[in-house]
Amino acid sequence: MRHAAAHPAPRPPFRRRARRGAAQVRQRRLGRRGADAVQLDGVARLLRRDGEDRPGVRRPGRGRPGTVAQVGRRGPAEDPGPDGAGAGVLRRYPLYIFDLDGTLYRGDEAIPHAADTVRRLVEEGSAVRYFTNNSGQTREFFARKLQTMGFPCEPGMVYSTATGVAALCRERGVDRVFCVGEPGLVQTLREAAVEVVNADAKGRVWPCGEASAVVVGICRSFTYALLDAALQCLLKGASYWATNTDATYPLEGGRLEPGAGSLVAAVSTCAGRGPDLVVGKPSPWIVRQILEETGVAPQDALLVGDRPETDLACGRTLGCPTCLVLTGVTRQAPPDQAFCEDLRGLLDPTLR
Amino acid sequence: MRHAAAHPAPRPPFRRRARRGAAQVRQRRLGRRGADAVQLDGVARLLRRDGEDRPGVRRPGRGRPGTVAQVGRRGPAEDPGPDGAGAGVLRRYPLYIFDLDGTLYRGDEAIPHAADTVRRLVEEGSAVRYFTNNSGQTREFFARKLQTMGFPCEPGMVYSTATGVAALCRERGVDRVFCVGEPGLVQTLREAAVEVVNADAKGRVWPCGEASAVVVGICRSFTYALLDAALQCLLKGASYWATNTDATYPLEGGRLEPGAGSLVAAVSTCAGRGPDLVVGKPSPWIVRQILEETGVAPQDALLVGDRPETDLACGRTLGCPTCLVLTGVTRQAPPDQAFCEDLRGLLDPTLR
Repeated sequence: MRHAAAHPAPRPPFRRRARRGAAQVRQRRLGRRGADAVQLDGVARLLRRDGEDRPGVRRPGRGRPGTVAQVGRRGPAEDPGPDGAGAGVLRRYPLYIFDLDGTLYRGDEAIPHAADTVRRLVEEGSAVRYFTNNSGQTREFFARKLQTMGFPCEPGMVYSTATGVAALCRERGVDRVFCVGEPGLVQTLREAAVEVVNADAKGRVWPCGEASAVVVGICRSFTYALLDAALQCLLKGASYWATNTDATYPLEGGRLEPGAGSLVAAVSTCAGRGPDLVVGKPSPWIVRQILEETGVAPQDALLVGDRPETDLACGRTLGCPTCLVLTGVTRQAPPDQAFCEDLRGLLDPTLR
Repeated sequence: MRHAAAHPAPRPPFRRRARRGAAQVRQRRLGRRGADAVQLDGVARLLRRDGEDRPGVRRPGRGRPGTVAQVGRRGPAEDPGPDGAGAGVLRRYPLYIFDLDGTLYRGDEAIPHAADTVRRLVEEGSAVRYFTNNSGQTREFFARKLQTMGFPCEPGMVYSTATGVAALCRERGVDRVFCVGEPGLVQTLREAAVEVVNADAKGRVWPCGEASAVVVGICRSFTYALLDAALQCLLKGASYWATNTDATYPLEGGRLEPGAGSLVAAVSTCAGRGPDLVVGKPSPWIVRQILEETGVAPQDALLVGDRPETDLACGRTLGCPTCLVLTGVTRQAPPDQAFCEDLRGLLDPTLR
């Protein structure tokens, strides 16, 4: 894993320019210190980011830093490597939280080296959890898919926004919801003993029934009548939860289809208010749930994903270190973002 | 018709407080002048609003002020009435543009005195046009409805956002569109020789076909697949026009249903951009069209409606005088807004 700001290898001019801009900003903040101090400062700030205290942020596992009973032993810290890249973030973590699409697979194809890396992390004693914004499938579906690709995975290791909504219902004591979603979301809720008032035996949703909570996610059977039925619940004061607000989903071949965010926008517009809670990234809700269930402190859980603004932002809020992987939609790491070209970078800091 | 700021009749405390607040603001702007000057200033500003020049606003009929050939003679100016209320806006206008719901009828019931008033205005030589944000019906439908209630109306006097989109297609030379809308919109477009690529013989829309312009309005047959098909057109660079952006529609009994605005929000979110043009109120597009077709200058056309922020805003932008009527959703006139309790106020300034 490398660190963008401290990386010393030759870069094309536009990347160097971007870095220099960031360095100048830091230099101004540092006053009279020179360029070396600036480089070091980049690393030092990452070190601080791991451990610093953030007022106002609730920290799951707080008071039990480094609790690893549920997730196995802490792995050995890595050498920083010959160029010192990534020092301060580069070590083995008790817990790795992986995004799926763009990080472990693309569509139905595993990304090279991803499965080997995750297997090795598990063999060396780290715990692994998988986290997707997708609300349309059950965790069993994702577990099967990951197993087929060679990833070590059981259903309980998968966190989707469907499992997130189920956990939210548990937390809030809600056992009946009106659902704008796919059969996979309905099934996940039913398995958590939550009644979906408007779903048939196959989990397909219809414009009927009322409940004191409305859940909106991707829903390919979305209709105007369903929107109207959701509105009527909300006008009567129902809680309003969104699985996620992704505007579009990428399909194979580069095609985009409307995401849950566009349906949330329709509901929010007629209801005159946004969701009370968004479960998916960039909201930290599910990462917090993972930390609580594994008992790992935020600084001991590395978030790995291909989208800084969603996959990584949701953990950063909680104080988790993050690593961008360039195998998905992001081709260049933002300044100050630890990153690796592919997942092997998590194991070997000298890898080029 | 009265003028809120200048109205001298006793009012409940909260209304008086609101007026006094507005007067104080004006007084500050006026410097050392006293309360009388403030009252007069309210009237004077209305006079100015009628005739003043607004840079940057295109004025239909400009250079032909007061052209009335198409709409009949200019009516006689009214006396200002014993208390002077409404002086400066209170006169007969060559053209009256009426909102429908809340102004002329509520649901299927005519509002008392509305039809008599409109008939008298026409008898005295004024022209009348009707303007609704509704895109779901043809102008023949509205004309029949208004005639049944006793309003003087021919289909050509009705302007809906459906006729607005048809006019927009004519103006832009577009003869094929992808439509998210009701059969009434499809029929209106077909009558204007615009092909709707995704509609069947009955005018019902389906998720098929492509065009270089996408029209989004209220659509009770809206589905996820239709949203996806609209998105694919927009991703290929199609123009994007919305009939209107009303978040909800009020139904009889106080029920609300999702409006075109909520469907526009869904399309805009996944497309990553808002409409290139919104035809309906508060956009001035259709009022401009009415002024151009009747040849009336903005200052000679009075806009009458029950929603200041939409019905009246769309004309104010163009320099039209406006009159709020309190028979619809608005129960209290904003400061500086000319208003009447019901439409009789357009005829008789002394009416209480």
